Amino acid sequence: MSGQQSRDPRVERSRTAVLAAVVELLRERGLPSVTIEAVLSRSGVSRATLYRHWPTRRALLIDGLNRLMPPPLEVLDRGTVEEQLRFFVDSLAKQLSAHPWATVLPTLLDEARRDPEFATFMPAFLDARRSTLRTVTANAARRGELRDDIDSAVAIAQISGPLLYRRLVSDEPLDEYFCDQVATGFLATYRPM
Amino acid sequence: MSGQQSRDPRVERSRTAVLAAVVELLRERGLPSVTIEAVLSRSGVSRATLYRHWPTRRALLIDGLNRLMPPPLEVLDRGTVEEQLRFFVDSLAKQLSAHPWATVLPTLLDEARRDPEFATFMPAFLDARRSTLRTVTANAARRGELRDDIDSAVAIAQISGPLLYRRLVSDEPLDEYFCDQVATGFLATYRPM
Repeated sequence: MSGQQSRDPRVERSRTAVLAAVVELLRERGLPSVTIEAVLSRSGVSRATLYRHWPTRRALLIDGLNRLMPPPLEVLDRGTVEEQLRFFVDSLAKQLSAHPWATVLPTLLDEARRDPEFATFMPAFLDARRSTLRTVTANAARRGELRDDIDSAVAIAQISGPLLYRRLVSDEPLDEYFCDQVATGFLATYRPM
Repeated sequence: MSGQQSRDPRVERSRTAVLAAVVELLRERGLPSVTIEAVLSRSGVSRATLYRHWPTRRALLIDGLNRLMPPPLEVLDRGTVEEQLRFFVDSLAKQLSAHPWATVLPTLLDEARRDPEFATFMPAFLDARRSTLRTVTANAARRGELRDDIDSAVAIAQISGPLLYRRLVSDEPLDEYFCDQVATGFLATYRPM
């Protein structure tokens, strides 16, 4: 039956309308505004249809977020660690500057703090992104281009932290100069002795 | 008249009750929950009294936040840049770990994104804190302990960013090891040639 449903174009249209309403409300008014009532009203979908696909508000939120979230950043699989790292920092800066998920991050972090079950969504999403940088640093350490005692969990905070701080907290630009400073500082920190 | 009011203990009790209600709602349910109605209901203060002190919800929020926010971090005004920087990183880590303002930061950042007038509150608050680290790095550069081309705006993101990332995004501990790694990395980045 669920296979049947997923091929039905009317069902697909309803699903799309509901998830679009979730994403819009999230962006416009934050996560607390994404109630079942608000989603019904904005999407025009019937209550029965909505509950058939998403038994709870949390299930609906998680589907909406998965739709909103960008894919993990790509790794440059050639070049030196300096080239790979600069590519990573520039890609992260571009995604944080342009993609809507960065604007909803504060409301997600706020909800995660209050709802422990929702909070489990964040690490799963972050882990997929963190593995990209982990691969870059591990390969570079193996090739002798970075110190072999580099701790990838710390490295991730040293790269992502400054960019997120500028994007979300201080509202300063993630420009070429800033990305260059972050990458240069990181390379100086982990240059082999 | 306002001088008279501020000496009246009943007026002071009302003000305190209102601001305590703002801070509690903020911590428990986030900034969208801090409505005039919710504050009246929780504080037991009359509508007339509340509006006498705060003509708008925004004025009430800003007073509540000023009450919640911790003072700027202290600077160690002796020792080497390494000692001063480690002292700063440890103090920031302790404050982020223990003080309630860190838990409300996501909801504030979310509101700042949607309300440009409210957004002006954040830079004023941050600037008071940023000046502490700016003083440390500027003095160290003058003494030749850090490179003299250090950009304090970048430096602030390189120190605060990793700590905020761990506290708010990845929910990892701001322990002694992590603080040491951040301070060591920063010193390696700006060691004079």
